Amino acid sequence: MDIGFVGLGAMGVPMARNIAGAGHQVTVYNRTRERAGVVVDVAQVAASLADLSCDREAVVTMLADDAAVEEVAFGRPDESGQITPGLVAGLSEDALHLSMSTISPALSRRLEEAHRAAGQHYVAAPVFGRPEAAAARKLWVVAAGAPAQVDRARPIIDAVGAGFTVVGDQPWQANVVKLAGNFTIGAMIETLGEAFALARKSGVEAKTFLDVINNALYKSPIYQNYGTLIADERFDPPGFRLRLGLKDIRLALAVADGAEVPMPIASLLHDQMLAALANGGGELDWSAFARLAADRAGLARTL
Amino acid sequence: MDIGFVGLGAMGVPMARNIAGAGHQVTVYNRTRERAGVVVDVAQVAASLADLSCDREAVVTMLADDAAVEEVAFGRPDESGQITPGLVAGLSEDALHLSMSTISPALSRRLEEAHRAAGQHYVAAPVFGRPEAAAARKLWVVAAGAPAQVDRARPIIDAVGAGFTVVGDQPWQANVVKLAGNFTIGAMIETLGEAFALARKSGVEAKTFLDVINNALYKSPIYQNYGTLIADERFDPPGFRLRLGLKDIRLALAVADGAEVPMPIASLLHDQMLAALANGGGELDWSAFARLAADRAGLARTL
Amino acid sequence: MDIGFVGLGAMGVPMARNIAGAGHQVTVYNRTRERAGVVVDVAQVAASLADLSCDREAVVTMLADDAAVEEVAFGRPDESGQITPGLVAGLSEDALHLSMSTISPALSRRLEEAHRAAGQHYVAAPVFGRPEAAAARKLWVVAAGAPAQVDRARPIIDAVGAGFTVVGDQPWQANVVKLAGNFTIGAMIETLGEAFALARKSGVEAKTFLDVINNALYKSPIYQNYGTLIADERFDPPGFRLRLGLKDIRLALAVADGAEVPMPIASLLHDQMLAALANGGGELDWSAFARLAADRAGLARTL
Amino acid sequence: MDIGFVGLGAMGVPMARNIAGAGHQVTVYNRTRERAGVVVDVAQVAASLADLSCDREAVVTMLADDAAVEEVAFGRPDESGQITPGLVAGLSEDALHLSMSTISPALSRRLEEAHRAAGQHYVAAPVFGRPEAAAARKLWVVAAGAPAQVDRARPIIDAVGAGFTVVGDQPWQANVVKLAGNFTIGAMIETLGEAFALARKSGVEAKTFLDVINNALYKSPIYQNYGTLIADERFDPPGFRLRLGLKDIRLALAVADGAEVPMPIASLLHDQMLAALANGGGELDWSAFARLAADRAGLARTL
Repeated sequence: MDIGFVGLGAMGVPMARNIAGAGHQVTVYNRTRERAGVVVDVAQVAASLADLSCDREAVVTMLADDAAVEEVAFGRPDESGQITPGLVAGLSEDALHLSMSTISPALSRRLEEAHRAAGQHYVAAPVFGRPEAAAARKLWVVAAGAPAQVDRARPIIDAVGAGFTVVGDQPWQANVVKLAGNFTIGAMIETLGEAFALARKSGVEAKTFLDVINNALYKSPIYQNYGTLIADERFDPPGFRLRLGLKDIRLALAVADGAEVPMPIASLLHDQMLAALANGGGELDWSAFARLAADRAGLARTL
Repeated sequence: MDIGFVGLGAMGVPMARNIAGAGHQVTVYNRTRERAGVVVDVAQVAASLADLSCDREAVVTMLADDAAVEEVAFGRPDESGQITPGLVAGLSEDALHLSMSTISPALSRRLEEAHRAAGQHYVAAPVFGRPEAAAARKLWVVAAGAPAQVDRARPIIDAVGAGFTVVGDQPWQANVVKLAGNFTIGAMIETLGEAFALARKSGVEAKTFLDVINNALYKSPIYQNYGTLIADERFDPPGFRLRLGLKDIRLALAVADGAEVPMPIASLLHDQMLAALANGGGELDWSAFARLAADRAGLARTL
Repeated sequence: MDIGFVGLGAMGVPMARNIAGAGHQVTVYNRTRERAGVVVDVAQVAASLADLSCDREAVVTMLADDAAVEEVAFGRPDESGQITPGLVAGLSEDALHLSMSTISPALSRRLEEAHRAAGQHYVAAPVFGRPEAAAARKLWVVAAGAPAQVDRARPIIDAVGAGFTVVGDQPWQANVVKLAGNFTIGAMIETLGEAFALARKSGVEAKTFLDVINNALYKSPIYQNYGTLIADERFDPPGFRLRLGLKDIRLALAVADGAEVPMPIASLLHDQMLAALANGGGELDWSAFARLAADRAGLARTL
Repeated sequence: MDIGFVGLGAMGVPMARNIAGAGHQVTVYNRTRERAGVVVDVAQVAASLADLSCDREAVVTMLADDAAVEEVAFGRPDESGQITPGLVAGLSEDALHLSMSTISPALSRRLEEAHRAAGQHYVAAPVFGRPEAAAARKLWVVAAGAPAQVDRARPIIDAVGAGFTVVGDQPWQANVVKLAGNFTIGAMIETLGEAFALARKSGVEAKTFLDVINNALYKSPIYQNYGTLIADERFDPPGFRLRLGLKDIRLALAVADGAEVPMPIASLLHDQMLAALANGGGELDWSAFARLAADRAGLARTL
């Protein structure tokens, strides 16, 4: 396939490489053009979004947030105030926009409508996994959209991930699942924070407690990884910034609000992360809010 | 070793069998004597607690709750009002009481003191795992006590479990770890309840969501098992009754209160389980309180 | 003063009457013109918003929500798609827009900027009180804005209320105070719901309990009024709809989020009101969510 | 009436004086006898609890907590290990124990049973109000018990309070009402803490906000008093220690647990007060936990 790829961040670079590695012709675009140099060995570099869009069968977007995706999809004003067109204006008829970023379901709905109105197609396929997993082609992809278009996206999905789940035929459903999944990680972080505080005040080290529950109960790499970060209070440098984690919890709560689903743990996570932010923790790893349980229990910092 | 075993419930029977199977001489006692029949092929049956206690190197207790353990340890009034003596009165000097029940740290402290005063030893070694795991010798044992006594208990621990962790030299610490571990399971149940409600109101089946997070994130049998129970709303017959689960959360909160550890998720679990109890759910599986998130979201029952 | 008044709802009508009654010349405008008839004895009726705006020294707006205020301030498309201009376009230079609706601080900021850019003035002065209080001229007004403009608004404020507090020189601050005030009422509702449930399950009637705390502690008419509504479960017809109460809590949480203030009771109120909404209570009085505490305690409905 | 009075603390002294002032013959007893000196001008001093008990028509107890009341009612070991008898052993047949302390409903049940078995009577009549209110005879009394006995207690109740409410014919019901009433004060404290934090981060002083809501909504002296304490962060010297406030919330939660009433705000208060305790606030006024909302919002201390 002849594939465009927009967004060369920590996730985007290994994903673009893997798509190229699977034998597809890849053309990349990044707002700061120099950044595109990192994949020049496997991909062509488009001079503009317009160049990237035209005649491409599919374009993948892998960007930081709603604002970045909106700009790429709907265009942005240039210096003279004119709107530089985005994917909706630039893609050929019948082309596919495969949106792999973690964005709000609301934006996903708008994108679906806009591409449909332009005679194009839209599939949402956000991913679970960190940069290392992306490099190792071990992402898990959550896809939703019209079945024929999801099928069409399969070669790309296969190229970046270890597996995928199709969760519905409305693209925004995949975005809900991604946000709800991140919510469960947040809940695990808070749970470990509370349990570690209780263990520590009982004279049991956090890591000893983690060993017990992961051997006895969870047998789960994600409990091991996050549990170790929290036990060691190793929140800097961040793997995923608290500021961004809070953004995802806000999006999850906004969806829950619209769907009329009370989520008391999500509300608690919001309050905890907001407290962490208000006390200077926004740039730490998002698991840093687990530290609040220890603070409130009067425990001294371990670092 | 010459080992006494008290408590032939769903957990005790397979544990007693495994101890006998490892080559130890096992003598059992159960309040309702007929019940002892189920292990008569591998164990001797003591006529009384006094018979069980005397001259035994170690006695294991595996009972339902604090009240049952208190009675076995400190005795109980018989029909005539006289106290039938318990383990503390009956055990020989230097004998070991290995307490494997899920009890309060407070009772564990009392037991340690009483046995010490009587020239005996006490090790707490509660287990993680359900009856099937007990039968398959796959329990995980959490032990705490004087190192020499924990070593002495090792053959028994090895006979019933797939592994163990020593968490401290104060027996009650093992009981804290067990309660804190159960708290984390409760937190997982509530988390899944909330996330499933959000998924379902977004048109995504609970099981589809479970597939995503367990493939993408957790890769954990316990998420699979509890997640399936909750998605199917299959709460009857119970694996572990809500009434007992609530008791464990109460004990965890009591420890947290004494140790001055605020645990907001534990407080939430208490409120949810209390609501489930007040609305008739006490005899269902304890994961049934996850149903409340769906109720509050206005979702119809799936069964 | 020559005063325009927009918004003839349950609050607006008595307020407009009181302004006229204080000797001001009042001209009203309402989207559905017939509605203006109810004040024709004391006020002139403008044929359009443009007529209302021009040459007026001050215009008061008292509308239901952000959307209604936005439309009146910034205009709306007519049948032919053209924008009918609003207050910003229509007010004379140096005129004052006195905004008395409960709106978001964010909209208040936008209004302040727009009026300033147009050479006009903007003061926010939301009110506490229900329609009966408005009729009895017993509202309490919370004002914020440039001191000179607040002074200028004083005759209007005095005409509608029993008193007022100036909370700052930024108009949006008054909107924060109004939302935070409504939050405290919501917290009182939930508190009474929980305490009544405990009293009732202890065999003490809710009203008996209310008598105790209001005689012994609060001596407060608002505890009396809301407490009686909740004790009687008299939620229909609504004084203030739950749907609107939830909107105010959402706005409060949005402000708190932006200001980085964790508010766990506000989060709880959001979850409770959302549960009430999801179960069909949106058109009841907003105190109806207190009923959830009784439901969760397994209490039968009293009506 | 010939009345015994036990407990000469900050509340007991003015209450005993008021009873004497109403024309009753008062005999006091206090564990530390010197303390009794403070009322020697109006009351006789008993040498022992036994002296106080015998031939008295009624004995009032006004003590700090369950332990103190238990000791006075059921006796305590003296130096030689013998039990010095308490009220149950010492009161004459048909005498009345009027228990005005804030104690657990569970202890109130035990007292009722013990006095009944001894041919005596028991009425619970805890009070709302601080020492100043006691001195001014402005307490509010919450009474429960057999109607004839409550009538019999009326002269005493009238002598100490400005009014009273009879809430049931089971003494423990009065204790539930007292605890539930204190819970509502705790909820008000947390609510004010959160609202003040939001106001302050919006540039509005806490006291300005308090003025608004108390003028506009509550018109309540207790909002004024607690609100001022919290706004000024004047938590020392304490009016009512946080350690004791937490004890009352624990008792309320214990009752709620037994009655199967989920109380999420009570759970939150418990967690907040526990955090305050763990961080050294146990001896401050109990309203000090409102400070946590400000801390979590990143606000600097005002003192």
